[in-house]
Amino acid sequence: MSSATRKRAREIGIRIGSLTPGKLNAISDVLGVVVGHTTLIKGSGQLIPGKGPIRTGVTAILPHQGNLYEEPVTGTVHIINGYGKAVGLAQLLELGRIDCPILITSTLNVGLVEDAVTEYQIRENPQAGISKKTPNPIVAECHDGYLNDVQGRHVRTPHVINAIQNARKEVQEGCVGAGTGMMAYGYKSGIGTASRILSPKHGGFIVGSLVVPNCGRQGDLIVDGVRFTNLQKEETNPDRGSVEGGSIIVVVATDAPLSSRQLQRLARRAVIGIGRTGSVVSHGSGDFVIAFSTASQEEQTTESLVVNRTQLKESLLTPFFGAVVETTEEAILNALFMATTLTGRDNHIGEALPMHELSLLK
Amino acid sequence: MSSATRKRAREIGIRIGSLTPGKLNAISDVLGVVVGHTTLIKGSGQLIPGKGPIRTGVTAILPHQGNLYEEPVTGTVHIINGYGKAVGLAQLLELGRIDCPILITSTLNVGLVEDAVTEYQIRENPQAGISKKTPNPIVAECHDGYLNDVQGRHVRTPHVINAIQNARKEVQEGCVGAGTGMMAYGYKSGIGTASRILSPKHGGFIVGSLVVPNCGRQGDLIVDGVRFTNLQKEETNPDRGSVEGGSIIVVVATDAPLSSRQLQRLARRAVIGIGRTGSVVSHGSGDFVIAFSTASQEEQTTESLVVNRTQLKESLLTPFFGAVVETTEEAILNALFMATTLTGRDNHIGEALPMHELSLLK
Amino acid sequence: MSSATRKRAREIGIRIGSLTPGKLNAISDVLGVVVGHTTLIKGSGQLIPGKGPIRTGVTAILPHQGNLYEEPVTGTVHIINGYGKAVGLAQLLELGRIDCPILITSTLNVGLVEDAVTEYQIRENPQAGISKKTPNPIVAECHDGYLNDVQGRHVRTPHVINAIQNARKEVQEGCVGAGTGMMAYGYKSGIGTASRILSPKHGGFIVGSLVVPNCGRQGDLIVDGVRFTNLQKEETNPDRGSVEGGSIIVVVATDAPLSSRQLQRLARRAVIGIGRTGSVVSHGSGDFVIAFSTASQEEQTTESLVVNRTQLKESLLTPFFGAVVETTEEAILNALFMATTLTGRDNHIGEALPMHELSLLK
Amino acid sequence: MSSATRKRAREIGIRIGSLTPGKLNAISDVLGVVVGHTTLIKGSGQLIPGKGPIRTGVTAILPHQGNLYEEPVTGTVHIINGYGKAVGLAQLLELGRIDCPILITSTLNVGLVEDAVTEYQIRENPQAGISKKTPNPIVAECHDGYLNDVQGRHVRTPHVINAIQNARKEVQEGCVGAGTGMMAYGYKSGIGTASRILSPKHGGFIVGSLVVPNCGRQGDLIVDGVRFTNLQKEETNPDRGSVEGGSIIVVVATDAPLSSRQLQRLARRAVIGIGRTGSVVSHGSGDFVIAFSTASQEEQTTESLVVNRTQLKESLLTPFFGAVVETTEEAILNALFMATTLTGRDNHIGEALPMHELSLLK
Repeated sequence: MSSATRKRAREIGIRIGSLTPGKLNAISDVLGVVVGHTTLIKGSGQLIPGKGPIRTGVTAILPHQGNLYEEPVTGTVHIINGYGKAVGLAQLLELGRIDCPILITSTLNVGLVEDAVTEYQIRENPQAGISKKTPNPIVAECHDGYLNDVQGRHVRTPHVINAIQNARKEVQEGCVGAGTGMMAYGYKSGIGTASRILSPKHGGFIVGSLVVPNCGRQGDLIVDGVRFTNLQKEETNPDRGSVEGGSIIVVVATDAPLSSRQLQRLARRAVIGIGRTGSVVSHGSGDFVIAFSTASQEEQTTESLVVNRTQLKESLLTPFFGAVVETTEEAILNALFMATTLTGRDNHIGEALPMHELSLLK
Repeated sequence: MSSATRKRAREIGIRIGSLTPGKLNAISDVLGVVVGHTTLIKGSGQLIPGKGPIRTGVTAILPHQGNLYEEPVTGTVHIINGYGKAVGLAQLLELGRIDCPILITSTLNVGLVEDAVTEYQIRENPQAGISKKTPNPIVAECHDGYLNDVQGRHVRTPHVINAIQNARKEVQEGCVGAGTGMMAYGYKSGIGTASRILSPKHGGFIVGSLVVPNCGRQGDLIVDGVRFTNLQKEETNPDRGSVEGGSIIVVVATDAPLSSRQLQRLARRAVIGIGRTGSVVSHGSGDFVIAFSTASQEEQTTESLVVNRTQLKESLLTPFFGAVVETTEEAILNALFMATTLTGRDNHIGEALPMHELSLLK
Repeated sequence: MSSATRKRAREIGIRIGSLTPGKLNAISDVLGVVVGHTTLIKGSGQLIPGKGPIRTGVTAILPHQGNLYEEPVTGTVHIINGYGKAVGLAQLLELGRIDCPILITSTLNVGLVEDAVTEYQIRENPQAGISKKTPNPIVAECHDGYLNDVQGRHVRTPHVINAIQNARKEVQEGCVGAGTGMMAYGYKSGIGTASRILSPKHGGFIVGSLVVPNCGRQGDLIVDGVRFTNLQKEETNPDRGSVEGGSIIVVVATDAPLSSRQLQRLARRAVIGIGRTGSVVSHGSGDFVIAFSTASQEEQTTESLVVNRTQLKESLLTPFFGAVVETTEEAILNALFMATTLTGRDNHIGEALPMHELSLLK
Repeated sequence: MSSATRKRAREIGIRIGSLTPGKLNAISDVLGVVVGHTTLIKGSGQLIPGKGPIRTGVTAILPHQGNLYEEPVTGTVHIINGYGKAVGLAQLLELGRIDCPILITSTLNVGLVEDAVTEYQIRENPQAGISKKTPNPIVAECHDGYLNDVQGRHVRTPHVINAIQNARKEVQEGCVGAGTGMMAYGYKSGIGTASRILSPKHGGFIVGSLVVPNCGRQGDLIVDGVRFTNLQKEETNPDRGSVEGGSIIVVVATDAPLSSRQLQRLARRAVIGIGRTGSVVSHGSGDFVIAFSTASQEEQTTESLVVNRTQLKESLLTPFFGAVVETTEEAILNALFMATTLTGRDNHIGEALPMHELSLLK
């Protein structure tokens, strides 16, 4: 089944929450945000560890298209469940600042992807680590081992740089980039995204999420409040997915001027969106939420001792929390709805969620 | 409407999740746990700050009926959103140990209730703070100011001691104790509870929750996946409830032998149950989760340098997470379903959730 | 020995660190900050729990003398060791905002002092908790039970309000307020304070600390790098102090425009100043650091969606860290140096640190 | 000057604290712990980014010499200041478990070293990430850019595996492994270690620390309470060291049966040892403390639902805190005392601390 026949949640009439999506209903509705993917699909049949088959990739989220190293944005991370290998988190929490593209990839591949981002930043900023600060790559991961040869760590420096350099406003969903080999709720998952526009009373700001869901057991999926059951066939493989129970990465972007403390408050709401799709965040799930504001560009080198910052009033945050919940929930559905069936290692079949039955839900 | 006509969620056919409830479907299904309430209802009409009307109370949860000061239990707290005045949290996190009954009351009343628990523990343990350690009272709160004269701090030492001393296995729900004046999703709320039995494969342990929901805006309530809309009348007061947007306290108990780190992992899942009832955890919401294990009684005075502890295997935790989510969600529904209409200060009416319409949901 | 014969560290030639103190060498060198004490000394002889003897008190630190409830300041708390009953911390961390005077008192007295601050704020702000937000009292404590009848909780509402209302720029040190009954390193302790002026290159900002040290075992005291040994007599009571090993409260103030995240970074350095006086932060020590900036007054009610904030550049923070370390260390020494011998319950003698021997150190 | 002429702190009569060191006065006094280094020194003269000169290395600390992946130990991490790129921390905090050797290296090299540990664990455990869990490499770093070509990331997989495989009980100190290119307090630094034996009353357990100090400004060094001043020459380069102000990694080991929560309490005391050597933990310092217990080997695959664990009584922890402080302070001194002068990139000279003057201190 080609992705052309797949539809986003909203296209089949599912409307999550009450807020209005942005133009693209994507994280890139936040002005400046771009997303790039490198997708690696190669080989088939029996798993030969370190060789293949390859069903993996890498996704880059750029808060803006300038030089992030020179013009970082305000950001944070919230760890829902820390069973994951994400890197760059300590410095992000200490300084509240993102100075590299955010990368998502396969679990065992985080080291090489971190190194690739370092390489990228050194090329772009020749004094990095010499007369100037070291960049802080942020790399998150999910385990795509149900379909992919994870031991191979097939994502290499050129793939990472390609994802960064080809990032654009149109966000591809489904089995691309980091989403290539992912599974959620027993079905093929991938990349999903969604956005919401706050009311004029709340400044008309945009909140967008991008997710890589690799979580949830077969039978747990909830679609807009309704537990999804495959009517056409018995569930035969309740533990489909990785041995450790999956993970989910959520990236939240906004153009509202929020401090890192305020972004932290937003990030902590994503778990509600995740939970509404059925997950209880299992023991082995590495669930991480990275959030940033494009409006709070961080201090640059000037003579002044201080920076002037604009900050949203605290009491206005509740609708932003709602937007995080709605976009996270809808982005997860989009990741499932847009993913297509993919066969991987040992002929494991990552079956796409049956669209026909989804339509019946509405 | 008397509470006799109210029904728990399960009594009208609503079944949250897939696990089986315990005998009472209450936190007290965890052996040893008892709950006591003191309910204060007095006066009516116009608010005279500091005088009344009084619509408040206090609820005590005792992990066991022995001397907690001498035989503490393992516990923890997770702060979902820290806009609240709960006390005793720093020591609870440092030591992973609960040595006092857990109390819940009205926001501005936490100081007096803390002092009352101190008084109680001194009476029971005459050397407390002299030749022996100081007790660490744990008191959480929600803001019952829509119906109650909060400035009056009407809960006093005898009320607290009464709640502790009259704690029993049968848990009253609805407008009692700390739940007396609470509102959630625009309707009258109160005390709610629920429990789940883990499968024999997971040891047959019990997980129970007790909640005091005072959160959620009118129109946001979700009942088992379905957004609740009052068919009979227009929503006229979307901001019913406190000026700050409410709060929720969740207490989770289990008889499984869990460390404080493991209990922390359980506690962090309660937000999913909260979110599934419609809340996005608003800015002004103080959402705290206190969790304890009755099986992990803490070290006592012996000659030995070490204590021997039994601890559940980490990889078995996922079903416990599910149980926390299910019991939290169901306990919130029970709090709403069992609460009855109550008129309070300035003739504010805390209207009970219409049961007839709830029945239509099923 | 009267306090007239006691001298501050600097008066006997001890110079901690390299920065220059402010005019008063006190937390109140930070413009606007005032400190008030109520000291309670009554009775003598045998401890009659609940009656006396009384050797306790309460100290109020006001970030400014306006209405904090209406004009809160940016603040934070860092918990070095959470064996303590401090209240108000969750909301302080969530919002990064202090809207009440900061109070310090005796361990078992925190509930009543919290209630007294609530009472004070209600009187000053009649709509608090009704049509407006609830105030968030911040109360920290140390255990003065070596000299004081702790079970009596002798600090009551009038004492708290007196400390707040009589707060002034001149900070009394030694056996006053919360320091009245405290012991540190086996000697009589009390209130201590110190300040530092940052260089013009760093904006000439002020950092001040106020401490209530009740920590450290006899024999552990280090004075400016030199371990202090009482030459005149054998140590006979190594465990003098409370059964649990004491505590220390540090309050850090600055007029630099710092965010709550930046203040958190300052607060985390106080432990170095504590450690340099000899403490290893024992198991039973409740060591809390509260920090605030008078320059970052928080948002007020206007029509605008945003607040404009000035924030110090991150890379300038290191000298502030040094100032926190220096002022904390010196304030602890001042607390010991300014305290006078006091006899308390059961004729326990809290002996002042012998000044003559201290002079020999230099 | 060869390292043969260098002496450890204790060899020149400096005795930090009051506890007795273990036989080797090294982290490996904790039975089972071994340490390995790979040292890379190559080229000289002008920095050619990516090429050299090379003054770097990698250090491996193994909690035991069995298969850590199959037999993990209980561990934790405390972040004093998060300006660092350490990886593996989220999962370590979530599970309280270390299942890989701990590696320390140069800042920009963490990605490649993480990947090398992954490679090592895959080779040792062919089903890792396939039918069994993924390993969680823990890699910390300091910035050796004053002497080393950091952009080159010269530590590669064979170097890492060599450090792991050649780990032994004898711990080399000074300019080896991760310490090769490090600077502290303006002088050449390196690897340092120390240990303490608890009294029989406290079980006779061992606490050991290993440090890689790369922190502190010239002029700030304190040696056993005395500020060190180079009498022989003026300080000419106060900012010697990296542009960001350095870092320090501390690894704490013990054979006492401690839970991850208890280890966290130990880890939080290391900052006092750091502070006593003069550092105030500058803005750009990535100060991380990793702690583990060899006695608390984690759960393995058996039929039982529970594991039986022995845990030290909480009230016995204070002397362990003292041991952490003492060993951290002494290990830092050892790192400086054992390091020899090394010339690196752009002919920067990392001058060894003058031993003659140190002797005068005593």
